[in-house]
Amino acid sequence: MVTSSVVDTYPLSSYTFGTKEPKMEKDTSVADRLARMKVNYMKEGMRTSVEGILLVQEHNHPHILLLQIGNTFCKLPGGRLKSGENEIEGLKRKLTSKLGATVPALVPDWQIGECVATWWRPNFETIMYPYCPPHITKPKECKKLYVVHLSEREYFAVPKNLKLLAVPLFELYDNVQRYGPVISTIPQQLSRFQFNMITK
Amino acid sequence: MVTSSVVDTYPLSSYTFGTKEPKMEKDTSVADRLARMKVNYMKEGMRTSVEGILLVQEHNHPHILLLQIGNTFCKLPGGRLKSGENEIEGLKRKLTSKLGATVPALVPDWQIGECVATWWRPNFETIMYPYCPPHITKPKECKKLYVVHLSEREYFAVPKNLKLLAVPLFELYDNVQRYGPVISTIPQQLSRFQFNMITK
Repeated sequence: MVTSSVVDTYPLSSYTFGTKEPKMEKDTSVADRLARMKVNYMKEGMRTSVEGILLVQEHNHPHILLLQIGNTFCKLPGGRLKSGENEIEGLKRKLTSKLGATVPALVPDWQIGECVATWWRPNFETIMYPYCPPHITKPKECKKLYVVHLSEREYFAVPKNLKLLAVPLFELYDNVQRYGPVISTIPQQLSRFQFNMITK
Repeated sequence: MVTSSVVDTYPLSSYTFGTKEPKMEKDTSVADRLARMKVNYMKEGMRTSVEGILLVQEHNHPHILLLQIGNTFCKLPGGRLKSGENEIEGLKRKLTSKLGATVPALVPDWQIGECVATWWRPNFETIMYPYCPPHITKPKECKKLYVVHLSEREYFAVPKNLKLLAVPLFELYDNVQRYGPVISTIPQQLSRFQFNMITK
């Protein structure tokens, strides 16, 4: 794990993007998703999920890599940990599953940085909070966001049913309607970092 | 400086609050404030300000100490650094000026923790962003927020024209109308910390 308040950001053009087989969503509706969450909770207890913030730069401004499903919904790469799985190892596994090449030699050597946010789901509902609300003793999910330090060159394989977008911080900021409460406040969470914009 | 992702929070009742002479605002209007900022910028260049997030707990939920001016406006304790002043030393000076006793022996030994957010003012206007917007080469202000680790017992002297409030994170969250963009997203910035609630 890398703990540094300086994040090197390389131009989007220094990365290579290919495709791989589709990764279908496990659920086709929000109701299905919440129902599956409930079943898993009964079996394994609180769900812990981890997501990665992968940064690149364009025009000297930081951009975040988001996976777009369909025409509007965007998410960070990541997912649910297995029971007892280490957060850092689990995030690496999920990043490889979402963005890594199918040829192991081409998979990035993921450098996981600091945790920048934790969100809590108190009930089997879509709403989450950046704290465990008072009187909630059994939260249903804890989601952690980590900075991922990319090297200068990487190859990403994007599942064919998804699009990978580089979205500037100024587009995310104050845009809860489009990106939701978790992604739209990433600019605030990253504001304490110093971005070392590498332009070559 | 203390870098720890664990923040001990003591009950509000473990602190003692007194009063001291009023600390009047330097400006009586937003227009005056921006005009003074412009004059200072001409003399000293970009303004750097530092503010402290002082945490206490009530009902096992973190609360932040805010200074209230008049009936509605709230701000964090802090202020502008002198030209060339160290951020940590400057924040300690400002905290003492705002909340320290007039008797030096009673002034808290301020333990400044991590920077949790940086905000940029691109123009002589009220709007600030959690990044320096693209194409802005000469920002007018950079404001940094730091966690302040309080000891179990402290004495705070509050200027008579101000009120010191302990505001719960759930009240700040998603409440930009009441607290503005900087204070209302403090819950997200603190979400990565683990709060060690001390109840005795």
